[in-house]
Amino acid sequence: MTTANLRVAVVGAGQMGADHIARFSHKISGAEVVAVVEPDEARAKAAVAGLPEASTRTRIEDALEKDSIDAVLIATPGPFHEAVLLPALEAGVEILCEKPLTPDSESSLRILQAEQQLDRPHIQLGFMRRFDAEYIALRELIASADAGALLMLHCAHRNASTGEGYTSSMLITDSVVHEMDVIPWLVGEPIAAVEVKKARKNSLAPAWLDDPQLIIFETISGVLADVEINVNVQFGYQVTTEAVFEKGIAEIGKTAGLMRWQDASFGGVEHVSFKTRFAAAYDSQVQRWVNAARNGTIDGPSAWDGFLAATVSEAAVEAQTTGKRVAVQYAVAKPDFYN
Amino acid sequence: MTTANLRVAVVGAGQMGADHIARFSHKISGAEVVAVVEPDEARAKAAVAGLPEASTRTRIEDALEKDSIDAVLIATPGPFHEAVLLPALEAGVEILCEKPLTPDSESSLRILQAEQQLDRPHIQLGFMRRFDAEYIALRELIASADAGALLMLHCAHRNASTGEGYTSSMLITDSVVHEMDVIPWLVGEPIAAVEVKKARKNSLAPAWLDDPQLIIFETISGVLADVEINVNVQFGYQVTTEAVFEKGIAEIGKTAGLMRWQDASFGGVEHVSFKTRFAAAYDSQVQRWVNAARNGTIDGPSAWDGFLAATVSEAAVEAQTTGKRVAVQYAVAKPDFYN
Amino acid sequence: MTTANLRVAVVGAGQMGADHIARFSHKISGAEVVAVVEPDEARAKAAVAGLPEASTRTRIEDALEKDSIDAVLIATPGPFHEAVLLPALEAGVEILCEKPLTPDSESSLRILQAEQQLDRPHIQLGFMRRFDAEYIALRELIASADAGALLMLHCAHRNASTGEGYTSSMLITDSVVHEMDVIPWLVGEPIAAVEVKKARKNSLAPAWLDDPQLIIFETISGVLADVEINVNVQFGYQVTTEAVFEKGIAEIGKTAGLMRWQDASFGGVEHVSFKTRFAAAYDSQVQRWVNAARNGTIDGPSAWDGFLAATVSEAAVEAQTTGKRVAVQYAVAKPDFYN
Amino acid sequence: MTTANLRVAVVGAGQMGADHIARFSHKISGAEVVAVVEPDEARAKAAVAGLPEASTRTRIEDALEKDSIDAVLIATPGPFHEAVLLPALEAGVEILCEKPLTPDSESSLRILQAEQQLDRPHIQLGFMRRFDAEYIALRELIASADAGALLMLHCAHRNASTGEGYTSSMLITDSVVHEMDVIPWLVGEPIAAVEVKKARKNSLAPAWLDDPQLIIFETISGVLADVEINVNVQFGYQVTTEAVFEKGIAEIGKTAGLMRWQDASFGGVEHVSFKTRFAAAYDSQVQRWVNAARNGTIDGPSAWDGFLAATVSEAAVEAQTTGKRVAVQYAVAKPDFYN
Repeated sequence: MTTANLRVAVVGAGQMGADHIARFSHKISGAEVVAVVEPDEARAKAAVAGLPEASTRTRIEDALEKDSIDAVLIATPGPFHEAVLLPALEAGVEILCEKPLTPDSESSLRILQAEQQLDRPHIQLGFMRRFDAEYIALRELIASADAGALLMLHCAHRNASTGEGYTSSMLITDSVVHEMDVIPWLVGEPIAAVEVKKARKNSLAPAWLDDPQLIIFETISGVLADVEINVNVQFGYQVTTEAVFEKGIAEIGKTAGLMRWQDASFGGVEHVSFKTRFAAAYDSQVQRWVNAARNGTIDGPSAWDGFLAATVSEAAVEAQTTGKRVAVQYAVAKPDFYN
Repeated sequence: MTTANLRVAVVGAGQMGADHIARFSHKISGAEVVAVVEPDEARAKAAVAGLPEASTRTRIEDALEKDSIDAVLIATPGPFHEAVLLPALEAGVEILCEKPLTPDSESSLRILQAEQQLDRPHIQLGFMRRFDAEYIALRELIASADAGALLMLHCAHRNASTGEGYTSSMLITDSVVHEMDVIPWLVGEPIAAVEVKKARKNSLAPAWLDDPQLIIFETISGVLADVEINVNVQFGYQVTTEAVFEKGIAEIGKTAGLMRWQDASFGGVEHVSFKTRFAAAYDSQVQRWVNAARNGTIDGPSAWDGFLAATVSEAAVEAQTTGKRVAVQYAVAKPDFYN
Repeated sequence: MTTANLRVAVVGAGQMGADHIARFSHKISGAEVVAVVEPDEARAKAAVAGLPEASTRTRIEDALEKDSIDAVLIATPGPFHEAVLLPALEAGVEILCEKPLTPDSESSLRILQAEQQLDRPHIQLGFMRRFDAEYIALRELIASADAGALLMLHCAHRNASTGEGYTSSMLITDSVVHEMDVIPWLVGEPIAAVEVKKARKNSLAPAWLDDPQLIIFETISGVLADVEINVNVQFGYQVTTEAVFEKGIAEIGKTAGLMRWQDASFGGVEHVSFKTRFAAAYDSQVQRWVNAARNGTIDGPSAWDGFLAATVSEAAVEAQTTGKRVAVQYAVAKPDFYN
Repeated sequence: MTTANLRVAVVGAGQMGADHIARFSHKISGAEVVAVVEPDEARAKAAVAGLPEASTRTRIEDALEKDSIDAVLIATPGPFHEAVLLPALEAGVEILCEKPLTPDSESSLRILQAEQQLDRPHIQLGFMRRFDAEYIALRELIASADAGALLMLHCAHRNASTGEGYTSSMLITDSVVHEMDVIPWLVGEPIAAVEVKKARKNSLAPAWLDDPQLIIFETISGVLADVEINVNVQFGYQVTTEAVFEKGIAEIGKTAGLMRWQDASFGGVEHVSFKTRFAAAYDSQVQRWVNAARNGTIDGPSAWDGFLAATVSEAAVEAQTTGKRVAVQYAVAKPDFYN
């Protein structure tokens, strides 16, 4: 590992980008933000306020000039990823890209092709759940076969509420996409089919939104993984998984911490945002990416994982629209490049 | 209420019947077992060993003679219920009948018709979950609308293992039948449709058994209730329900009690049998039935609930066989007699 | 065991007595209340309202006449126990006596002497914690030595609030008396010394009451058992014990049941009364006493245990008054009669 | 804040020092280890193996030469602290000193005097519990008075086992010293008295060690804080606190995470080392110290807190030896310098 700090350009200075910029300043060893790429100049200025040596840019191409950066962290909305990924790959810098890789499998394939022009994978994808201690513990339990083979997963993905721009298909493409990555990662094999069922509608959800829904995935060996996607639960932010094995059960995602007894009841505090629920996972993800990038490698989900998720996502949207079970077809087999 | 003890004939002296006989001796106020009806004489003798004043009979008709009993508790297998229910109804005695009412909706209808010849319902059905403190608390929470309307239920029904005679259709007719009763009771409305999905097979289950499976019920207002039926889990006996409301979540069925910390871990003891898991519910069910019977009424699920469960059960077996969603059709509307 | 019901006279028709009368009517097998002894006639009449065949008496002697009862359950305040116990012992009936046996060790000794005129112990004492499932599980764990020898106990005894007549010494004699019985029963040996420390006073407790306090018991082998007695906690009724072993820890008394997630928090319901917290223990205690009494024996703490608790109680009040550690001196050794 | 990294010398390359060196490399933003001070040359070399630009020194004075460092982190045993603290203070560098400040109150006073020659406090003391999320939550709850005033604390401090050099007085000076800091920090006022009681001895503890013991602290307003110190519990590493308020209870320190059901039981994994139990607290402590040091301040317990703990520690050792309650006398009042 080089001893020099990794020079990072953060692309996108919205909520997610600002979070990452603060993370580099306060928690991450071995990296510093040297540029912020953001078309909105006021927002860009605000983002670098505490970073006197960081520059602001409106275009990724400017940041990539003259070998002034080693890496980019992409925190723009998904539809803008391709326009950043392609020049960044061409420049050969290290990349941490927030999920999704791109909004559809076709554009994801283009990214895979561009990346394969390089010597090795340069893109790490921001599926941060893989860095959550409980998900890691569950994956190890599954891999150990200590409780026998895995048979089913029951997942719940609950958000307090959604905003104006959030549509029914985004239940799949924006939210359940996390399960599309983490289920194959847990099970150790790809998703083979998907079906979607609508539950009784939550009257507190926006009128246009069919919320909640039940998504049922099957992996190739027949593991059933049902996902309750429920994004106007009001009470908090909660992501849980119950794994059903041949001779045991395991559960992750229930909140703990300080417990109180008062007023004839007892209990604790639930998360209300992914930021606190997955704070440690985000920190770990970025630190491990920095460590890997300084060593010329990645240490997390790759662009290939992003392509898989994009493909499953399209099948799930079709399942949601048709009400039918949809078999998932992957356009290409996994290139050796990603093994 | 009369002050005299209710004179009960227990029909069937197998495991369930023996359990009930012991219950009357050790825990139930206001009733006594005066007869045991059981064709196997040795078993019958064993059952009354501690009851010097109780007689044994091989046929229900003998027990019903000469006004010598006030009530029958039927603990034979389901296929034998009709042959006991019809003469018992004719004799006008009080009846507590273990689930199911009868094995199919057609025979259940015959029971409904026979019972309607009487002045009021005489049959209480042994769906004991309705007497479990946590189920009752969940039902009250749903009825209160304190967390908004109910949208989904996630149920798990897990047994340690099954014996030789247990078939794939019995997953539905023998096990999930409990959920078929308790889901409408919780939600407050009937089941409208059912679908069945097979998960990856447990290699520890018998070769002929597709275990576990996922049963998905819809109620008439659109509440989705998924049930993991999983009867060779090895680790214990566990029945849980998670209820998803518009602004909250509730969960029942997780074991508690003495907690230990030892050997780098912590935890407690899980049930391994329905007998301990639902012991208090069985006691409460029988006591409340006795109290009601002494007052000339019932206090629990009726034959009508048994007919509903039999109808849903048939639809679920069809769904299991065809792999398709099956709409549930009830042959008759609810008679006023049962309101 | 005789098949005839045990004919019980309940002495005292206050809150506790009324509770027991209802218990016999609704939950206990093999016994019936045939008399209520209560000087307040209106209260006595109310108590037998649902029991047409039960008589009311103002004096225990009247109830004991003419062999009309088999047993008495004493539910009067402690200072009145001796006046009931002595004639009941003389009549040779079975006795379940609410704690304490009597208010002091001297009068308890008189009861011991009277009882030893009989063929065997007739008095069972109402320390109901011994019938609580978690206490029983903890005792079994201690006896098993599965986690090594027991070294310490941390107990908490919390009541929502206390009334006007409740004094600082009653913290000991009325409340901690339960721990004085249950600690030796758990540990398997007597208490050897006691010390009392006052904590910061709860401003919500009555002005005259030093509440909470910390009572520290030592058993003869050196097990330290500290008890937080805290009787104006407002939030509920909670009785917990943490046991510290050589290689592990165990904890009992934390409430479970239905869990809810709502309003950015999660939790469940805490007890607010001993009546619900120990409901099952009371039922079990009375049923097991009835079963034993019908067989001419007792099945629970004896008058000897009451004498031990009375002796410890006096030492603890002295420790509370003096602020000093007080060694406990038992006036007599355990008679063979009680082995 | 300066943008330059804080140049840190780590003093002591034992287990604790090595841990901190790894922390700077992998988790801490804004600081780098430039020197390791360690008399054992082999150990020193090993410590800087991954740090090509860091030097090794055998004496603190060498590291302090020529303005080559900005800060020192002292990770040697307590008896060696003074010899590092005094020259480091003289050099005016920033200091993070592992607990205790020094082994006794007299030497701690000397440190206070030396530090007051500077413009402001330069020493932050390594009581890492103040950076644990649950301790912070408990302190906020106490400060909020949301559950009324605090009345009692029940603390448990449990280690799996102790080594050869660990003596009975180290129960106090090495282990309970953490509670001596955190209790006043939680309660908001100093400790006024202390008493020590020996429990039944753990036969698995070394023969020379009276383990476990119960330490009872009183703060100046009368809050009682009992501490079970128990350092050969075998089962794991566990640090818990239960806080008793006027109208509620709160508890911290119970482990959570992945829960499993298997083999007729359920449970999770307990910590076995302070390194995992307090990993996040150590990270937070060091990061916040780095951030503060770069701004010319401290952000945690000061040398004054170290002096208080040293004073209480001496009183507690006296209480342990004499078996008596010992009032704590602080030699000096808090200088304005530390406000």
